[in-house]
Amino acid sequence: MAKEIPYKIYLSENELPNQWMNLRAFMKNKPAPLINPQTLQPMTQDELSQIFCDELARQELDDSTEYIDIPKEVRDFYKMYRPAPLVRAYCLEKTLGTPAHIYYKFEGNNTSGSHKLNSAVAQAYYAKQQGLKGVTTETGAGQWGTALSMASAYFGLDCKVFMVKCSYEQKPFRREVMRTYGASVTPSPSLTTAVGRKILQEFPNTSGSLGCAISEAVETAASLDGYRYALGSVLNQVLLHQSIIGLETKTALDQYGVKVDIVIGCAGGGSNLGGLIAPFMAEKLQGKADYRIIAVEPASCPTLTRGKYAYDYCDTGKVCPLSKMYTLGSGFIPAPTHAGGLRYHGMTSTLSQLYDDKLMEARTVKQTEVFAAAEYFARIEGILPAPESAHAIKAALDEAELCKQTGEKKTIVFGLTGTGYFDMMSYEKFHDNKMTDYEPSEEELSKGFAGLPTL
Amino acid sequence: MAKEIPYKIYLSENELPNQWMNLRAFMKNKPAPLINPQTLQPMTQDELSQIFCDELARQELDDSTEYIDIPKEVRDFYKMYRPAPLVRAYCLEKTLGTPAHIYYKFEGNNTSGSHKLNSAVAQAYYAKQQGLKGVTTETGAGQWGTALSMASAYFGLDCKVFMVKCSYEQKPFRREVMRTYGASVTPSPSLTTAVGRKILQEFPNTSGSLGCAISEAVETAASLDGYRYALGSVLNQVLLHQSIIGLETKTALDQYGVKVDIVIGCAGGGSNLGGLIAPFMAEKLQGKADYRIIAVEPASCPTLTRGKYAYDYCDTGKVCPLSKMYTLGSGFIPAPTHAGGLRYHGMTSTLSQLYDDKLMEARTVKQTEVFAAAEYFARIEGILPAPESAHAIKAALDEAELCKQTGEKKTIVFGLTGTGYFDMMSYEKFHDNKMTDYEPSEEELSKGFAGLPTL
Repeated sequence: MAKEIPYKIYLSENELPNQWMNLRAFMKNKPAPLINPQTLQPMTQDELSQIFCDELARQELDDSTEYIDIPKEVRDFYKMYRPAPLVRAYCLEKTLGTPAHIYYKFEGNNTSGSHKLNSAVAQAYYAKQQGLKGVTTETGAGQWGTALSMASAYFGLDCKVFMVKCSYEQKPFRREVMRTYGASVTPSPSLTTAVGRKILQEFPNTSGSLGCAISEAVETAASLDGYRYALGSVLNQVLLHQSIIGLETKTALDQYGVKVDIVIGCAGGGSNLGGLIAPFMAEKLQGKADYRIIAVEPASCPTLTRGKYAYDYCDTGKVCPLSKMYTLGSGFIPAPTHAGGLRYHGMTSTLSQLYDDKLMEARTVKQTEVFAAAEYFARIEGILPAPESAHAIKAALDEAELCKQTGEKKTIVFGLTGTGYFDMMSYEKFHDNKMTDYEPSEEELSKGFAGLPTL
Repeated sequence: MAKEIPYKIYLSENELPNQWMNLRAFMKNKPAPLINPQTLQPMTQDELSQIFCDELARQELDDSTEYIDIPKEVRDFYKMYRPAPLVRAYCLEKTLGTPAHIYYKFEGNNTSGSHKLNSAVAQAYYAKQQGLKGVTTETGAGQWGTALSMASAYFGLDCKVFMVKCSYEQKPFRREVMRTYGASVTPSPSLTTAVGRKILQEFPNTSGSLGCAISEAVETAASLDGYRYALGSVLNQVLLHQSIIGLETKTALDQYGVKVDIVIGCAGGGSNLGGLIAPFMAEKLQGKADYRIIAVEPASCPTLTRGKYAYDYCDTGKVCPLSKMYTLGSGFIPAPTHAGGLRYHGMTSTLSQLYDDKLMEARTVKQTEVFAAAEYFARIEGILPAPESAHAIKAALDEAELCKQTGEKKTIVFGLTGTGYFDMMSYEKFHDNKMTDYEPSEEELSKGFAGLPTL
């Protein structure tokens, strides 16, 4: 007889994975390598080590090791907030009247408020182990900056955060959380870097972008002794660390004999989605099981759905390596949608390759329908979601509604990446009917594509 | 051999208590009854039912039933966020270098951000069961208002919240959380009630108080058909519902054979402390075990430590029943300290009686040392605490430090009632060295005492 499934499945601390899963190792068509914009050759480990700390440079290039040990110190930190609950959305299923079974992996039960902490602690640990003084980074919605601040405080590292200006202004309290953990926070673009000054000269009224903040953080790390840059998404190393989301999810579902049909996640740079789907996609790649895997992105920043698969700069300032990815062009500055974490012009190379190989789907959703889904979900399931996470909620609701129409009893799993505690100004706009939807025109997209490098 | 204690002890959903514990039933010296200010007689159930819904009026007066069943619907709601983790503060112990073992019961892993949801869901459930249209309430820090909004949304009730003006201004985003759950929020004192208009006439610049907001909420409920008032602290019914904190804590500790020496909680109206200590105090009252139990209150609102044990009004407007309690006088308006949830002039009658019977201790701590403790804790244990909760942290750190000096290996348990996500403006003041300490003078206290009723 099947075990009764609780509202929340918590693995025990002993069941916390000992290893991360390196999804690339399971792929026949590997993601294309990072390219050095000067030499136009694949980035070497030595070159990457000037940007990232050594072990992370190694992880970035390793596309063959299937599993990589999680250091004990990182695992100990994980135990402060993991394993994260896998929630059976009983209340939601009942209210929807759907035959579908809905689960969500909730990553918001930590002070950073999101899954970002999973990679932040790994990156801070390796930086400390290498004897560095500190790390620099960018943050969009603020979750990654908070996560890296927390991890840096724990390991005794300095942390300098460049925060996308529109988020900095929309989320004044985020800054104070980071300060509580001892970090310094600068709105981006800023006058503290050459690239920031250049962008401000060209676009004095810009609300900033992740691509621009990345450039400033990289430049700052390079100019300081004993500092390296840390990135919260897009990179292979980040997807590796985030695989803990998917590994815990799969273990929990397997314990209850649950067979999944659809896996859904929001996609900005791809860190959450890449982590959530890792063990599912690995099975799919090995022909062991089939899953529908759906990336959900904002209509205002439709990287997979309307972007080009090409080599592009990861940052606006063009100081980073080139990555082959679905992209809207590094010059594309998305509308100031409230899901700051999804305002990135590109998509991690692993997901880009998987999407290009038709191993996963992608769809866009509009901002106002995302907030409507978020509020609906909050009232039923209790948790007030981050706008980013609510993109996945919207798609899950749509799939559950389809099941209701067809009578199919599918099992849907989605990633609830974080809480919306620091997004209440966006919710206020939604409540006051002051929120608008935005989709870039073909002309705007063409402008972005025109900036793609010719290699 | 003793089982290894994990970082977080999670009970399974099956181990969620089926019954609340009614601490009063274990007390020889019962808390004094509520008094009707008109008749000067103990409040009857009929009289209380004009303020609260029927079942809650019954619970309010029941001081003999030791355990009361938790309705299935409430238990189902609890399963969305409970059992709450009992955390072993390994990192804190190590950093402090103390031989003490430190545990905290973390009640912040739900969107209301605090333990308040435990009683809110019970109160909303009984209101719905009685066929009411809605509830009114007050909120200080905003946690109770958020909790009641969430519970009301879940059960389909209207919810009207009067929010203490200084919190309303310090925490603009709290309002939006409540609105997300469909509640309406009014800053108190307001012009919408007679009592609010009277207070504003007398003190036009008042930053408000819980006592005043209570009066407004009670008046509003009485003036509307199908509405009752709901209160998040002070009442016996609230302590009853909050006993789930202590029951889960004790069950978890017993499973690992942990013997507790000291139990610590912050004390505003007493809801968290009364709930946390319930099973420990019950054993103490039965002579089965001994525990040191410590209430921690802000120096700016020293109800137990400097108050009088006397009958007093629960609210500034004197519309509520009289309660015998430690009080600073219902006219005492505490300085606008940032721990809004602890700005209450009185203390729940149960804790008042236990304190008067010397079954528990009380101490005050200053605001700046509370925030220093909060920041210290956040950097080590990850969780960014609410200022209210940080009062308990400060006392726990002090006790752990004492153990370090004496070499005693005591086991300390404290209540970490909530997160500080909505208190970042206070943290900002602390970071910018703009926070001051405040203790009422003897003269100010005398003024408050002069307003005590003579029965």
